[in-house]
Amino acid sequence: MLKLKAYLATELPRINKTLDAEVAVLHPLVRPVAEHVLRAGGKRLRPLLTLLTARTLGAEGGGLFRKASGPDLYPLACSVELLHSATLLHDDILDGADLRRGLPAAHTVFGQTETVLAGDALLALANRIVARYGDARLTETIAEAIVRTATGEIVEIAHQRSTDHGHDTYIDIITGKTAWMLRASCELGALAAQAPDEAVQAAAGFGLNLGIAFQIVDDALDFAASSKDTGKPVGGDLREGKLTPPLIYYLETLTPQDRDAFVTRFRQGTFDDAAVAEVAADLRARGCDAKTRELAASYLDKASSCLDALPDTSERRILRQSIDYVLNRGT
Amino acid sequence: MLKLKAYLATELPRINKTLDAEVAVLHPLVRPVAEHVLRAGGKRLRPLLTLLTARTLGAEGGGLFRKASGPDLYPLACSVELLHSATLLHDDILDGADLRRGLPAAHTVFGQTETVLAGDALLALANRIVARYGDARLTETIAEAIVRTATGEIVEIAHQRSTDHGHDTYIDIITGKTAWMLRASCELGALAAQAPDEAVQAAAGFGLNLGIAFQIVDDALDFAASSKDTGKPVGGDLREGKLTPPLIYYLETLTPQDRDAFVTRFRQGTFDDAAVAEVAADLRARGCDAKTRELAASYLDKASSCLDALPDTSERRILRQSIDYVLNRGT
Repeated sequence: MLKLKAYLATELPRINKTLDAEVAVLHPLVRPVAEHVLRAGGKRLRPLLTLLTARTLGAEGGGLFRKASGPDLYPLACSVELLHSATLLHDDILDGADLRRGLPAAHTVFGQTETVLAGDALLALANRIVARYGDARLTETIAEAIVRTATGEIVEIAHQRSTDHGHDTYIDIITGKTAWMLRASCELGALAAQAPDEAVQAAAGFGLNLGIAFQIVDDALDFAASSKDTGKPVGGDLREGKLTPPLIYYLETLTPQDRDAFVTRFRQGTFDDAAVAEVAADLRARGCDAKTRELAASYLDKASSCLDALPDTSERRILRQSIDYVLNRGT
Repeated sequence: MLKLKAYLATELPRINKTLDAEVAVLHPLVRPVAEHVLRAGGKRLRPLLTLLTARTLGAEGGGLFRKASGPDLYPLACSVELLHSATLLHDDILDGADLRRGLPAAHTVFGQTETVLAGDALLALANRIVARYGDARLTETIAEAIVRTATGEIVEIAHQRSTDHGHDTYIDIITGKTAWMLRASCELGALAAQAPDEAVQAAAGFGLNLGIAFQIVDDALDFAASSKDTGKPVGGDLREGKLTPPLIYYLETLTPQDRDAFVTRFRQGTFDDAAVAEVAADLRARGCDAKTRELAASYLDKASSCLDALPDTSERRILRQSIDYVLNRGT
């Protein structure tokens, strides 16, 4: 893992500098909102994926492998991070979430109107940054990512408090709301490198499967023993009525009677803190979080197969490390 | 005016069919919201501008001047209408507006979450439709329009209930929130026709100035004698604290003492129905609405000059009619 962390440490200043510079054009009414959500952190996984994919496929970007003639990859790499930040702003309003990575969510600090508008502005900015490159394939990729991400959020809300769906619908939801952005990050990198179609597809498949696994692990962490790992209250998905794999597995372990009682409370949204803690502990005792990580591992296997189709470079080795990083997050 | 209306009547079925077909891909949670705002009407001015500009500049589109080999212009023409619909959904939430063209605003029927998400989905859809054409100049145009539109709304809200700004800031605001979309409609049409740069600039300038005038007339109509013409309550801008030209002119006619009293109420937002009706009548009696239409006419002159630079076709004559249509709207 050292190499991935070292690579990120090297790249982080320029990624953050690029994000700051792009956000600086926003109007003073919404710029602080954008800066708030960007400063709250995040691992800058999306920009890193674009840089690593582009360099694996030979793009002459900046940073460690910079050549004077190469295009500046950094704004492109940061575009999906800005789109991601836009979705965080809107999601926290729609979810009524008060915390984001342990800090107050933007809408609780700046107000709802400013936060909706800041989300719109960040989304528009991400789109315009990609358009600047003047390459229709790049803009198609970001346009598709915006559609998929919006749709994922919609499908999730349409299924809120429902227990009538299973893994397929769950995978549909997270493919939209999370995985497509990681897919787009890798696809943008491959397209920027002007890689052949098969390599672009392989890079996209790597990002997609990594993203699905990333969200599955996130949903496992939602039932972790403490909120230290996530900065969010334990069991948020249970409170919000989101049927994630740990809960799907948990329901399978219950007697019909216990299951009916659970489903009723889930639909009504009547879990208090004590009930959430009890379910989380019970769920872990029944091995549902471990089983969820196994599900994530199956998608990481697919991600790894996609990587095999890319050139064997030092960046590809770092991309492969990101698979272990996702699998072991919070452990 | 007959020719403009006849042209629109000929085109409307195919424009509406295209809008229906594009919106049909949306998720069932948000599709009714999108259909609601689209069915509430609107004059489809934006698609019409794209079609007319493209055909003036020789694009082989569909409809009256269709040739079998031409690209299908209609989805491109409808993209800005979808972006426009997205902004209506978000704006009515941010403004707390209950009515839209005389019908209940979408968020009062479908709820706030569904309406925010429908707006996001329509915006994403508009962007993806343009990306489908695979032309980077088209995607740059729609990307810029999205940024400008979002920023216009932000600047407007930042200046809400303020009387410290004047015409320049007002023009900045409406250039973003209204005029840039009309500019983009014309620019997309010119680009689709693969027109030379000067023609693209002239088409863009026509749309921009037409759009500025359109919004100025809209703001004059806000103080019309009845709400029949707009489907919105009279004096909505006064209630919402939006300083538009009729109010800027009105303030200039007041004695310092009356002005201070007015500004205090404007900032506090304490105009009731009777007070709004009184201001509207007084404002009309002082000729402030007529003066506002004169301001609009000055931008329509610029729009007309831009048209002079385009080829003298039957579509250009119809574009010129749209200038009279904007000037005389609601009279």
